[in-house]
Amino acid sequence: MPDPIPSASSGSTEHVEEGRVLVPKFDTEGLITCVATDIGTGELLMVAHMDGEALRRTIATGEAWYYSRSRKRLWRKGESSGYGQRVIEMRIDCDQDAVWIKVEQTGPGACHTGRRSCFYRAIPIGQSAAGAIVLEFRNGGKTFDPQVAYRDGTNSSPTS
Amino acid sequence: MPDPIPSASSGSTEHVEEGRVLVPKFDTEGLITCVATDIGTGELLMVAHMDGEALRRTIATGEAWYYSRSRKRLWRKGESSGYGQRVIEMRIDCDQDAVWIKVEQTGPGACHTGRRSCFYRAIPIGQSAAGAIVLEFRNGGKTFDPQVAYRDGTNSSPTS
Repeated sequence: MPDPIPSASSGSTEHVEEGRVLVPKFDTEGLITCVATDIGTGELLMVAHMDGEALRRTIATGEAWYYSRSRKRLWRKGESSGYGQRVIEMRIDCDQDAVWIKVEQTGPGACHTGRRSCFYRAIPIGQSAAGAIVLEFRNGGKTFDPQVAYRDGTNSSPTS
Repeated sequence: MPDPIPSASSGSTEHVEEGRVLVPKFDTEGLITCVATDIGTGELLMVAHMDGEALRRTIATGEAWYYSRSRKRLWRKGESSGYGQRVIEMRIDCDQDAVWIKVEQTGPGACHTGRRSCFYRAIPIGQSAAGAIVLEFRNGGKTFDPQVAYRDGTNSSPTS
């Protein structure tokens, strides 16, 4: 078992923000946020979480690993559907509590609902919350059938 | 005071994922993740959080509002620095626990460290965590002086 990645809690602000050493700041659940964008189009595909082990495996292998809060376990993107993510570039943010991966998305999509991106609905600007806020579908068509892709029944909102 | 936006906790999975009504799923701290990208370049500028009121104000006004966990308060992007974000398009993800805003960033940058984007360091792929993981600066040059922009001393990692 490799050493775990040291945490930002041990570093000064200067060390965390201007340093050259990865010291991720995990939240109270031991997670950091991960944003995945398509290396070709720049489109935002999904937002999910990584624990220390998912982060370590992603860095070591170049395949995207996440931690599913709903399933409470480590998860390699594509392990059920076959639609994995090869990480081309990886960035960390200023306070080291969020990671950005630019990926090659394998197959027709990243979203467990059967769409390319999880962000298939727009919130129109200028609405007040006095009534319900109505969403507009954008590229909302399904690119694959999640019932087929996730035969093992794991297509339950894994990004949560 | 307008009505608060109803939460996803009251909706079925079908309602949340395929519906046309905004029912955001706030975490145990009452927050959802917000990813801000540059409308022109597609670059990821920052990842921060919104509470219900920040979400409501952003939707109503088209100006980006966030909730700062470190300062424990609502915060309009640019209120200290003058470098705000005009929201051109807003999306919600499948399980409604993350928001994507495409913004026009005012001024030289979004990051409290004085850079255009918070994601100015790369994590090279293929490193094992046996030793320290060494970061590489990318577009790491400062585009403004945070000591001048944040004269009120609020430049302490507001995205946390």
